[in-house]
Amino acid sequence: MVKVGVCGYGVIGQRLADGVALQKDMELVGVADVAPTLAIRALKEKGMPYALYLASEENRAKFEQLKIPVSGTLEELVRKCDIILDATSAGVGAKNKELYAKYNKKAVFQGGEKNSVADVFFHGYANYEKGIGKQFLKLTSCNTTGLIRAVDCLDRDYGIKKVAITIVRRVADPGDYHRGLTNALQIDKAPSHQAVDLMTIMPHIDATGILIHTPVTHGHIITVVATGHKKITKEMALESFLKHDRIRVVSTDDGFLGNASFFRYARDLGNPRGDMYEIGLWSDSIVESGDEIMFAINIPQESVTIPETMDAVRAACEMQTDRLEGIGKTNTYLGMGKWK
Amino acid sequence: MVKVGVCGYGVIGQRLADGVALQKDMELVGVADVAPTLAIRALKEKGMPYALYLASEENRAKFEQLKIPVSGTLEELVRKCDIILDATSAGVGAKNKELYAKYNKKAVFQGGEKNSVADVFFHGYANYEKGIGKQFLKLTSCNTTGLIRAVDCLDRDYGIKKVAITIVRRVADPGDYHRGLTNALQIDKAPSHQAVDLMTIMPHIDATGILIHTPVTHGHIITVVATGHKKITKEMALESFLKHDRIRVVSTDDGFLGNASFFRYARDLGNPRGDMYEIGLWSDSIVESGDEIMFAINIPQESVTIPETMDAVRAACEMQTDRLEGIGKTNTYLGMGKWK
Amino acid sequence: MVKVGVCGYGVIGQRLADGVALQKDMELVGVADVAPTLAIRALKEKGMPYALYLASEENRAKFEQLKIPVSGTLEELVRKCDIILDATSAGVGAKNKELYAKYNKKAVFQGGEKNSVADVFFHGYANYEKGIGKQFLKLTSCNTTGLIRAVDCLDRDYGIKKVAITIVRRVADPGDYHRGLTNALQIDKAPSHQAVDLMTIMPHIDATGILIHTPVTHGHIITVVATGHKKITKEMALESFLKHDRIRVVSTDDGFLGNASFFRYARDLGNPRGDMYEIGLWSDSIVESGDEIMFAINIPQESVTIPETMDAVRAACEMQTDRLEGIGKTNTYLGMGKWK
Amino acid sequence: MVKVGVCGYGVIGQRLADGVALQKDMELVGVADVAPTLAIRALKEKGMPYALYLASEENRAKFEQLKIPVSGTLEELVRKCDIILDATSAGVGAKNKELYAKYNKKAVFQGGEKNSVADVFFHGYANYEKGIGKQFLKLTSCNTTGLIRAVDCLDRDYGIKKVAITIVRRVADPGDYHRGLTNALQIDKAPSHQAVDLMTIMPHIDATGILIHTPVTHGHIITVVATGHKKITKEMALESFLKHDRIRVVSTDDGFLGNASFFRYARDLGNPRGDMYEIGLWSDSIVESGDEIMFAINIPQESVTIPETMDAVRAACEMQTDRLEGIGKTNTYLGMGKWK
Repeated sequence: MVKVGVCGYGVIGQRLADGVALQKDMELVGVADVAPTLAIRALKEKGMPYALYLASEENRAKFEQLKIPVSGTLEELVRKCDIILDATSAGVGAKNKELYAKYNKKAVFQGGEKNSVADVFFHGYANYEKGIGKQFLKLTSCNTTGLIRAVDCLDRDYGIKKVAITIVRRVADPGDYHRGLTNALQIDKAPSHQAVDLMTIMPHIDATGILIHTPVTHGHIITVVATGHKKITKEMALESFLKHDRIRVVSTDDGFLGNASFFRYARDLGNPRGDMYEIGLWSDSIVESGDEIMFAINIPQESVTIPETMDAVRAACEMQTDRLEGIGKTNTYLGMGKWK
Repeated sequence: MVKVGVCGYGVIGQRLADGVALQKDMELVGVADVAPTLAIRALKEKGMPYALYLASEENRAKFEQLKIPVSGTLEELVRKCDIILDATSAGVGAKNKELYAKYNKKAVFQGGEKNSVADVFFHGYANYEKGIGKQFLKLTSCNTTGLIRAVDCLDRDYGIKKVAITIVRRVADPGDYHRGLTNALQIDKAPSHQAVDLMTIMPHIDATGILIHTPVTHGHIITVVATGHKKITKEMALESFLKHDRIRVVSTDDGFLGNASFFRYARDLGNPRGDMYEIGLWSDSIVESGDEIMFAINIPQESVTIPETMDAVRAACEMQTDRLEGIGKTNTYLGMGKWK
Repeated sequence: MVKVGVCGYGVIGQRLADGVALQKDMELVGVADVAPTLAIRALKEKGMPYALYLASEENRAKFEQLKIPVSGTLEELVRKCDIILDATSAGVGAKNKELYAKYNKKAVFQGGEKNSVADVFFHGYANYEKGIGKQFLKLTSCNTTGLIRAVDCLDRDYGIKKVAITIVRRVADPGDYHRGLTNALQIDKAPSHQAVDLMTIMPHIDATGILIHTPVTHGHIITVVATGHKKITKEMALESFLKHDRIRVVSTDDGFLGNASFFRYARDLGNPRGDMYEIGLWSDSIVESGDEIMFAINIPQESVTIPETMDAVRAACEMQTDRLEGIGKTNTYLGMGKWK
Repeated sequence: MVKVGVCGYGVIGQRLADGVALQKDMELVGVADVAPTLAIRALKEKGMPYALYLASEENRAKFEQLKIPVSGTLEELVRKCDIILDATSAGVGAKNKELYAKYNKKAVFQGGEKNSVADVFFHGYANYEKGIGKQFLKLTSCNTTGLIRAVDCLDRDYGIKKVAITIVRRVADPGDYHRGLTNALQIDKAPSHQAVDLMTIMPHIDATGILIHTPVTHGHIITVVATGHKKITKEMALESFLKHDRIRVVSTDDGFLGNASFFRYARDLGNPRGDMYEIGLWSDSIVESGDEIMFAINIPQESVTIPETMDAVRAACEMQTDRLEGIGKTNTYLGMGKWK
């Protein structure tokens, strides 16, 4: 049993903890945070299913006042673990790395950190082998993680030469008030970092892209214009996507009218928090133009990186040294592909 | 065991079915719907925890094609039940009533139907007694249900003479595309029907109100200006609210910054679908002005009526003929008030 | 002086009337509508700068009650005009066509009508020649009009072989309540009609695209992935765009952060209604990938079709039989390109 | 001719400059700002109708590079003026005050500054007399300005004892990206500052209120529950409101369905920027409950304070020492009440 700790119990950290708890070959030692946020209050109301460690002494009195049981400090958590999943705010992970290094522990950082924090920039499907045995891994961000799933899927089957993406990005998560956009579409300077990141993970592909922020909270949508080494037809693309365990192929005729449909469906499925680990792919969005294939995918930003982070633990801790075996274990424990 | 069926497996119907399934003294016979919606597809993906009946023959072929098991027709479901919870679209319930009457079954209609569909316009806390033994009950709508909880709470403790409400209404549920509002606040002619409905249920109170639609999906917020028969102080109001099992008292200092916080918290709690049965009440919104008390409540529109509908079953089927006993059973089985 | 009438005084009709009034070689005979909408009430409050004709007798009493002066019926307006700009709701134009035909008048229909309503599907820049002398023209829709401006611009300079577009569409205009989307991105089946329409106007180009509706009101954004017959660099594209009188090249560094910036800028310019006739093009969105060029444009949906509709009048009425002369006159009278 | 300068050429400053330019007994000397924002770029594109002064040397090179003519420094502007309208960001006004004091000039600050910056907290209709001859005035914020118009209107006619308000606040202006809210209603601790401010201006009234932020950009809506010294009927209230030159009485039947209708109507009227100086008041929102009257008003946040700021200049500079004369002049020059 690989012993895993989660540092930062926010939107991503909570889901990482839940994901680790589902892996039968990992043990969740505990989670760490700095303040009695709503997430921590919910943890207490649920009866503390996970042990809580304090990442700072600053708010200890508040925890005591609220009678939230604390099992120790972040340092103590780190000492008990083989690997830490760091889901703190951007920049904090780089600082925490010193602590992980001090005790010679492994760590997986999330997409907000700089690439230089880690030995390898990691994606379970695309470059599992590069993560094997490494001490520090950084996961791709939510958009890049989902995008690479789809591109890697076609690339392994047919060979991809070039992609041009348009990211229609949700600006906030449900319950966020500190960031937001009201009645505006905001554009970033091109190329988007997701296209650049894709090329870092998949250097044999030429990628560019434009990102547009939109005032919604349920899922990014990305359109992908991909050029294969040979012509990829709609049928060929669909066949590949349907085989993939982390891609859910849907259609507007089935009632999946947009990003919010996935959220609603996951709630109706009874998934905790209404989360979905898969990206969505609309079969009726796939179109051909000359030698290009174009399609749209849905990225559930809060939960999409959980499977690839489990993969990262497997690679870093050498639990499986074969790519398909590693991602297969993750898929089994997370119940992915069961819908087919 | 009272045998209960649910007709209409949409936003409300799904939650009614889940609610009934939690009542240890009720048996959920099955649910009925007309088409293989996302909700029905999710039911199938979950392995059909509830038996499904067809409310119309129109789409039978589609159900067969999708291999969704069907247990019979709506008529067959009705015959097996003691009482039907009708959560169909507005107007359909009135038509279904003929079927319920034909088999001499009881039924509870939701707020979208006209009052004339039922023998009594019902609210578990405010007029439980009026529903006892009745055949047809209509529940108050989501806003009215939550509003009456708060007003009834103060009324029973101190006596309320008059209320003036402002309803800041969410226009759509997560996953809705057929209705919506974009960058606008829309106003209805006053008085709002919720104020009128409150007076129907609580005829000793003078009520008026204005409703404003806002482009959000997570919870209505209502401000209430209430005048007591005697002066009600902030402390008196708070004391009453804190005792109530269907009112969750929170504060902005705790992190409940708005309607979306309740949704996020319920997701973090692991509540199915991220639902919450309680209304929220901000302790730091309570203010006095002369002899009036003013405060703000949050109404989780998708789930707030579930407890009062369970109360309605209890009253109609004479499971409990005492108000406190009836609502107490509902609260116990739904786990309400446990957070305190 | 060509005599022009406008039928339908809504979002587009009002702007067409204003646009005609600016053309020194056209005379605006009047506008027609069916009901005393806010637009008509504003016309009255402004002192009736345009003569108003009734397109139906249904609401005549209301006009009289509100003391809104009426100059006659739609039929009378048609008889006085050489050409009618029909900006009625989709489908009404096809019916009105009978009236225009009866008096042998010319007409320009807007994008909502079916192509079959007209002799030619028209875009001022791309196929001016096809409209010359024709009786019935249909203009491209707002997105297609703006998109073709940009594609035609590159096509004339360098030759375009293929485009793949992503339309990030605003769902409603400011002040709309009857349509809207709340916290959702909605996707249409691909290919989008705009890609198909582009191929109708520019049959030598292979086009496809995906459309995503977003809950905003100020301007669509379209990303275009274009492949030239020869490689088009960022510098080459920029040089072309900068010369165009209906394309405003901006950058995020200048403060144009998204679609709402154009609206705010046009308001600050003192443009009537805060309108802008130009499409916006972000210079810092232009990127190359292999032999493709990618960029983003902004489409001010309420006003973008006005210049091309003026072009249509010029072509249909043979006011100018040379493309550059025709569009040049429109640009002069609308003050386009003055910002450079 | 009173010489007026405007410091801060943003959302409010631009409108103040336009407002001053319409006052035939005032001279707009110029406007000052610190950076070549979109507003300044628009000023240049319009041909510099107002002289521009630099409020800081920091960006002088940028102005030169963009060929934006600069007439001097803020200090030079101050020296040329009798009074400065300070519309800088909150906090900057307090710093600028030293400069105004150094040259013994008068100044009017906007609602974002602290009350202590000024000798008097001012509202043209409610306490004109208090501003007469004062050196430093601070205007009420947009919500408070509009609210007091309506409350003062009833108070002068019938006497008001108490008000309880609910502010449904827009969170951003069109074109804002730096603040915003996405799919959430956010609540502030009660009482809202607007209720407190109302009591500062009208100390004989007892006021309280709750404020809820909503993700829209066109106008706040406030519901007011008011108690008179004697019973005020709907007819009495309507009669008062209809007489007021800064209150536009509308109804949903006329097509004013919400806050965005006012914006659309003002655009259709041809008002610069689509602005409206009046608050809106829905006649079909007025309802009675016992001895209380309740109604809803619309606050066009970008432009509503312009008339009262013109009043402030008149009072401070003793242009008119009679309240009705002062506000009457403002109304005449701004064309208010003309719609009746």
